[in-house]
Amino acid sequence: MAPTLEYYDEVSHDLPIKPVAAKVNGVPAVAAVSLDQSEKHDLVLRYFRAYIADLCQQFNGGHPGSAMGMAAIGVALYKYVMKFSPKNGSYFNRDRFVLSNGHACLWQYLFMHLVGVEEMTTDQLKSYHSEKYDSICPGHPEIENDGVEVTTGPLGQGVANAVGLAMATKHLAATYNREGHEVVNNMTWCMIGDACLQEGVGLEAVSLASHWKLNNLCIIYDNNNITCDGTADVANSGEDMNAKMRATGFNVIDILDGHSNVSSIVHALLSARSSDKPTFINIRTVIGIGSQKAGTPATHGAALGLDDIINIKKSSGLDPNEHYVLPNEMYKFFEDVAIRGKQLEADWANVLKSYEQEYPELAAEFKLRVAGKMPDDWTKYIPRKEDFPKEPTATRKSAGLVGNPLGENMKNLLVGTADLTPSCNVAYKKKIDFQSPELRTACGLDGDYTGRYVHYGIREHAMCAISNGLVAFNRGTFLPITSSFFMFYLYAAPAVRMGALQGLQQIHIATHDSIGTGEDGPTHQPIALAALYRAMPNVLYMRPCDSEEVAGAFEVAIKATETPSIISLSRQVLPQWEQSSREGFAKGAYVFVEEENFDVTLISTGSEMVFAMQTRDILKEKFSITARVVSFPVPRLFEQQSREYKQSVLKSSAGKPAVVIEAYAANGWERYADAAFSMRRFGKSLPSKTAYKYFGFEPELMAPKIEGLVKEVQRDGIQVLRGDFRDLNGALGIGFEH
Amino acid sequence: MAPTLEYYDEVSHDLPIKPVAAKVNGVPAVAAVSLDQSEKHDLVLRYFRAYIADLCQQFNGGHPGSAMGMAAIGVALYKYVMKFSPKNGSYFNRDRFVLSNGHACLWQYLFMHLVGVEEMTTDQLKSYHSEKYDSICPGHPEIENDGVEVTTGPLGQGVANAVGLAMATKHLAATYNREGHEVVNNMTWCMIGDACLQEGVGLEAVSLASHWKLNNLCIIYDNNNITCDGTADVANSGEDMNAKMRATGFNVIDILDGHSNVSSIVHALLSARSSDKPTFINIRTVIGIGSQKAGTPATHGAALGLDDIINIKKSSGLDPNEHYVLPNEMYKFFEDVAIRGKQLEADWANVLKSYEQEYPELAAEFKLRVAGKMPDDWTKYIPRKEDFPKEPTATRKSAGLVGNPLGENMKNLLVGTADLTPSCNVAYKKKIDFQSPELRTACGLDGDYTGRYVHYGIREHAMCAISNGLVAFNRGTFLPITSSFFMFYLYAAPAVRMGALQGLQQIHIATHDSIGTGEDGPTHQPIALAALYRAMPNVLYMRPCDSEEVAGAFEVAIKATETPSIISLSRQVLPQWEQSSREGFAKGAYVFVEEENFDVTLISTGSEMVFAMQTRDILKEKFSITARVVSFPVPRLFEQQSREYKQSVLKSSAGKPAVVIEAYAANGWERYADAAFSMRRFGKSLPSKTAYKYFGFEPELMAPKIEGLVKEVQRDGIQVLRGDFRDLNGALGIGFEH
Repeated sequence: MAPTLEYYDEVSHDLPIKPVAAKVNGVPAVAAVSLDQSEKHDLVLRYFRAYIADLCQQFNGGHPGSAMGMAAIGVALYKYVMKFSPKNGSYFNRDRFVLSNGHACLWQYLFMHLVGVEEMTTDQLKSYHSEKYDSICPGHPEIENDGVEVTTGPLGQGVANAVGLAMATKHLAATYNREGHEVVNNMTWCMIGDACLQEGVGLEAVSLASHWKLNNLCIIYDNNNITCDGTADVANSGEDMNAKMRATGFNVIDILDGHSNVSSIVHALLSARSSDKPTFINIRTVIGIGSQKAGTPATHGAALGLDDIINIKKSSGLDPNEHYVLPNEMYKFFEDVAIRGKQLEADWANVLKSYEQEYPELAAEFKLRVAGKMPDDWTKYIPRKEDFPKEPTATRKSAGLVGNPLGENMKNLLVGTADLTPSCNVAYKKKIDFQSPELRTACGLDGDYTGRYVHYGIREHAMCAISNGLVAFNRGTFLPITSSFFMFYLYAAPAVRMGALQGLQQIHIATHDSIGTGEDGPTHQPIALAALYRAMPNVLYMRPCDSEEVAGAFEVAIKATETPSIISLSRQVLPQWEQSSREGFAKGAYVFVEEENFDVTLISTGSEMVFAMQTRDILKEKFSITARVVSFPVPRLFEQQSREYKQSVLKSSAGKPAVVIEAYAANGWERYADAAFSMRRFGKSLPSKTAYKYFGFEPELMAPKIEGLVKEVQRDGIQVLRGDFRDLNGALGIGFEH
Repeated sequence: MAPTLEYYDEVSHDLPIKPVAAKVNGVPAVAAVSLDQSEKHDLVLRYFRAYIADLCQQFNGGHPGSAMGMAAIGVALYKYVMKFSPKNGSYFNRDRFVLSNGHACLWQYLFMHLVGVEEMTTDQLKSYHSEKYDSICPGHPEIENDGVEVTTGPLGQGVANAVGLAMATKHLAATYNREGHEVVNNMTWCMIGDACLQEGVGLEAVSLASHWKLNNLCIIYDNNNITCDGTADVANSGEDMNAKMRATGFNVIDILDGHSNVSSIVHALLSARSSDKPTFINIRTVIGIGSQKAGTPATHGAALGLDDIINIKKSSGLDPNEHYVLPNEMYKFFEDVAIRGKQLEADWANVLKSYEQEYPELAAEFKLRVAGKMPDDWTKYIPRKEDFPKEPTATRKSAGLVGNPLGENMKNLLVGTADLTPSCNVAYKKKIDFQSPELRTACGLDGDYTGRYVHYGIREHAMCAISNGLVAFNRGTFLPITSSFFMFYLYAAPAVRMGALQGLQQIHIATHDSIGTGEDGPTHQPIALAALYRAMPNVLYMRPCDSEEVAGAFEVAIKATETPSIISLSRQVLPQWEQSSREGFAKGAYVFVEEENFDVTLISTGSEMVFAMQTRDILKEKFSITARVVSFPVPRLFEQQSREYKQSVLKSSAGKPAVVIEAYAANGWERYADAAFSMRRFGKSLPSKTAYKYFGFEPELMAPKIEGLVKEVQRDGIQVLRGDFRDLNGALGIGFEH
């Protein structure tokens, strides 16, 4: 569908090249390109490409090819279409831009410079690949830097982030906009290369974009048909990409001369603004255009070489002996962008002003959201210890008891699940689903964009990558909750990692977290995954043992405003402990049962706490051995405590052994313990209790092994355990066995 | 396209219900269904579904819904179409079957029972969800059990496994079949549910199936339109699945009455056999058909309840008071399957016999492959230490020096890359690409099915899941090599895990394995990933420090016939060490530099070994501190050594501190060390050397910190370090910072 363009000049400024504002299908767009600009464009493109080549050449590295090939796309976006304010990267209603093919970051950096982002000086541009510690031009775009919405690089992630950003707009618009008062109506533009829709996470995300009818999302495909290994058909020849995206539910637009035809790209982008579906623009470009190696993988991930750079400049009519040239005309060409940006800010301020007058309460809440503040006091929704059931309760149920009142009341929460509503207990009372208002499902589970309960489908990886986008929309505006079985947070791990790297707060509800998962068997029983998340920087992996500790976990997670949390929960029922304490939990570890004169310290977490406590009883009754018990749900929080507190919990200087009991790989516990009952093999399909028994988690069998250890230490001294960590159950798993 | 069916009866047996063999488009199929069987089918379906309901009821759990809904598909496959031998699950040329929706395993177990798989007794069927340790009916199908080709459960994996199985056939057929002698020509059938093509790994895999034109692959979609959260349109309404699969490059067939119409399913399956593309059969079924909750999520993951079971039986004309009924007619109905299977085996034996006579050399090699034996002596291709360059060499280059001769000469190797041929150095001389022989790429990189170099595209997860399928085709026939940056083995982790769980040998070449990756920045610098793979059962994560250790890593990996290996390699050049030794490497850790009277042991691996060695020199020269050095590339192998050997390497009883130097999270090293120079935050975009410096990996700065530790121990005794692991560089990373 070709857009109807109505040119008009309300927004025209007194600039050498007049931007022409337009309405597309009746909707105002920032500007439509006037058709006599091709010479200007040509000049901009030639200097732009040469500058990119120069930047890569200086340290003989980097990714010049796509940055050069995408030049015309950048002109269309930055000069004509994208609504943003170069002087204020955090202008709230700005269009969001995601460079999912993050290796092409020089493209973005250089456009940011040209449109007038102040920090982005030529000195900064030249710090790309340098030894400068405070460069804002890292090898991939990083969220810390103004003008970058999300950190990208690992391919496919950006597509999902963009879906999250577009979702954020839809939700805020539906919740806060009122007739005549559009306080949020931005677009999300997402650049991708050939890889982003080969990667599974990208494919998961586009299905959701289409399901949710995110017509405020436009994916711009830099189709240069080149990947590292050759032309893209080396690994992708079977599919018709346009047909596939159309079948996926996208509005698809084709552009054949995208390396130079700015005008056609502008038209396509404008048409995306008025689509009723998300838009996919397939733009054919030439990687490394101008280079002797243009159109080949050689231009992708390496500098082009001095000879080639001379050639590029010669053939573009530039002086081959001049480097880093950005002529004045170029700056002039982009001059209006910053002016327009200021105007956009002023317009939005006006909209907000009249909105405040008309809807003061709503506006007050909206402003809290914009400021990234909680719209309500969350602490009042967390149950007290005495409110919890006394009978044994699965911690996944406890998480519902704590989380559901939050879900129901806290408007900043977007609570989601990868198709495990019945298992994860995150669905709260009177939930409204986040859905396209047009959707009519066969089961009657409809919703609208004000909904805060999100069905992600069986797409764990996209779920978490989309959550990253939701948070990145504006820090603090959303607190997403995701949920699935813990095992499937291995599918999602690359996205959880990106959330941690960017400091994007969110809460991952990971149920069925041990061999206690039972009959589903080894495929569903995590063994090594806790070791990943305990080692991953800026992740709080928390494993509470009962309802009280679950309350502690939510408190910690909500307070950790720059850290994603994983709350790891049992499928099976667990005792409610008199000893449990949210205050202790918040310290990462605390004494569960103290003993003045003790022989051994038992350390445990989550669903294995019951084994520690039972073993303690047996040790006392049958072996006259005194065991103190430590609940150790969050090693990372414990590491932050004072040396004195640590000593009071571990009492390691007492020279008594410590034994950890956890049905995971013991890796990492050696910091605190001398021996472990742990998992060194994959699990087994057995009912929960039987599975524990099968792997030796049986107090009757554990107690005598601990007695042996205690006796050995009493006989030979604690130093006997130095460098000789004891694995008390099970053989080491190499080879195929279980 | 409807197949042309030519009925004929060459294969008919003297059975109550005559199977009718057929040719479809001129290609012989095992049997086409005769159209007068609908009454028989009806009987089989009714008893089948009731039996499934009974099995789930006994322990009040399990997944009855899809197993019931898919009954007619099973009759079509097991009775009429699939070429296999129930009495010999390992018959080499059998059709491979993958239940990607593994939770429906009862369906497979019951069909296996009905067609006469001997181990699959009714007692075994009833052990589903029981406490029986040696059940062959676990909650998801497991590869250990005869008749199960791959372990499934984590959704989407099975689709990729099936692509690997189909690839295996294509490659073996192209390599060994000769005109008139088809020693391999089996089909791969893959059942999926609604989830498998929502998951990214499934979507990546189908793109590759179409790219490679795997027309021997048929995906059978149990489209019951129900997921845990409701009807599938709760999270998937935007896409037209058939159009999408057609655009992806599949032959698509639609079946509307798949819950009962065996005949139409048989026709569709037969048509898949003669397609020139992979086939996707979209079969509408009713989940939990017969139940009062039919067509709802309630039938998916829970027993149906006694009342409902009575209802199911009543409405199916069965006795509601009788349970576990499989009437004789049912067994009779399937009786011919085993007979046909024996015939298939005999036919294949004959084909093989004449093949041996005609092509004795080829046949000898083929038989080695079938037996899972190496077709050549691999040891002769591994370079000796003196063959390696003397100058500093990146271990990714070393891996090329060791791996490329293997790739070139070992016919069982299928060497692949996720689009990183120029970076990972796995491309060997005279490689032929595994490609459809019809492919003509724009860059001239064509190939055929005999090719052993595989371009997986930017699809790391599918790459590793497909590799699992390649190995599972027949243990030992293929040794797949995959390659990518180490960071992207986080994308692939769920597949690497499934390989480990199933004991599927393969070698993952993981380059760019530390912050030494440099300018690409934190997104590409792994920090926590080693902790995952070191904790994961049955994975050998190996981090060699020079060419000699790389040789050791390949030797270990090739000998580990039931274990996947990850060889973790540097981007940057590393010194070649006089001290390095493949024999030492094979023990997991060994003394690199010994000292009679030492003050401290330095432990290191891979690219950080250079810091350990330089720090040792500074300690000696500037601080008169004597450090011994241990190379510790594979903790898991070290754990298998004798206590004496361990003591000789660690010398922990000497009461001297041990310090590990590795630019990863230290988690797990606490077993062997008292202190660490490690990474507690994400990395940074800086050139390799500068990145190390930024994070404190600088011998000049490390030496005084180690001196401090040594002095403290000399003053206060070694016990001062007990329970007080020292992180010698960097702050703990919580919150957003770098």
